Amino acid sequence: MAGTKSRERSASALPNTAPRRRSARPPLTLDVLDTHLGYFVRRLQVWVFQDLIRELASIEIRPAQFSVLVVVGANRGLSQAELAAFLGIERARLARLLHRLEARGLIQRMPSAADGRRHALQLTAPGRTPLTRAEALAARHERRLIERLGAERHRIILDALRDFG
Amino acid sequence: MAGTKSRERSASALPNTAPRRRSARPPLTLDVLDTHLGYFVRRLQVWVFQDLIRELASIEIRPAQFSVLVVVGANRGLSQAELAAFLGIERARLARLLHRLEARGLIQRMPSAADGRRHALQLTAPGRTPLTRAEALAARHERRLIERLGAERHRIILDALRDFG
Repeated sequence: MAGTKSRERSASALPNTAPRRRSARPPLTLDVLDTHLGYFVRRLQVWVFQDLIRELASIEIRPAQFSVLVVVGANRGLSQAELAAFLGIERARLARLLHRLEARGLIQRMPSAADGRRHALQLTAPGRTPLTRAEALAARHERRLIERLGAERHRIILDALRDFG
Repeated sequence: MAGTKSRERSASALPNTAPRRRSARPPLTLDVLDTHLGYFVRRLQVWVFQDLIRELASIEIRPAQFSVLVVVGANRGLSQAELAAFLGIERARLARLLHRLEARGLIQRMPSAADGRRHALQLTAPGRTPLTRAEALAARHERRLIERLGAERHRIILDALRDFG
């Protein structure tokens, strides 16, 4: 359990677009939430998601599409089921996502050599350019995150969470 | 950039309900995703959310409702706008969430003394029991998370993410 000091946090220390009130009030407390990692993970996830959405908007790629393009590009011929399991994306959602990437000509599905019913995914030749661009934009996003967390903490958290799955 | 070893990860190391294929294939790689903290934060967030949903299901409280009950319980009389800003919850979503908690008799909205139009939120007396129960269940969830991450890493990540906002 953290001490009282770190368990209190002023509302104004968080992003707040509401006008400041003139009347003073004691700083708000997170109470037991302050001991719950999940609460802070959600806040970080919201920041990451918003920042990455903004960064990738110029090439009309969403964060989940970026993950899919990277993994399909690096693992030629994997199936939709393998991709869903590997990235932890729900099957129906992944199917819709792949359909949109296919319609834009960035990926293609081909019958697998091993099993005619399975569809092996691959990046198209024209899909390579937006993927390379997306990787550069995502790297810029990551540098911002490293700057905010500090390089050492970024590394420690990355190592810890890699092992989590 | 991580070394090759940590950048490769077998699909079977992740939750995978699909039947194993007989044919061997090289382990799948996350490629550049392996350097993106946001990717692993999302995976952790999914685990946390699913585990907490399961834990709180017996008292029909959702994770976001839990956060709201804790903060309303600990900060008597705060307004809806203050709560939205403090927890980083979108205003319209919070309004729906509060409406449901009010309909269940767990919270109430009263005209604020400072400004008749503002509604000061407070926990009701009958709301105290489910909140206490939810806190015990959430603590059990947190112990599972600590066990999985290791107490030391849990503490380091919690401290780092607390400062992030």
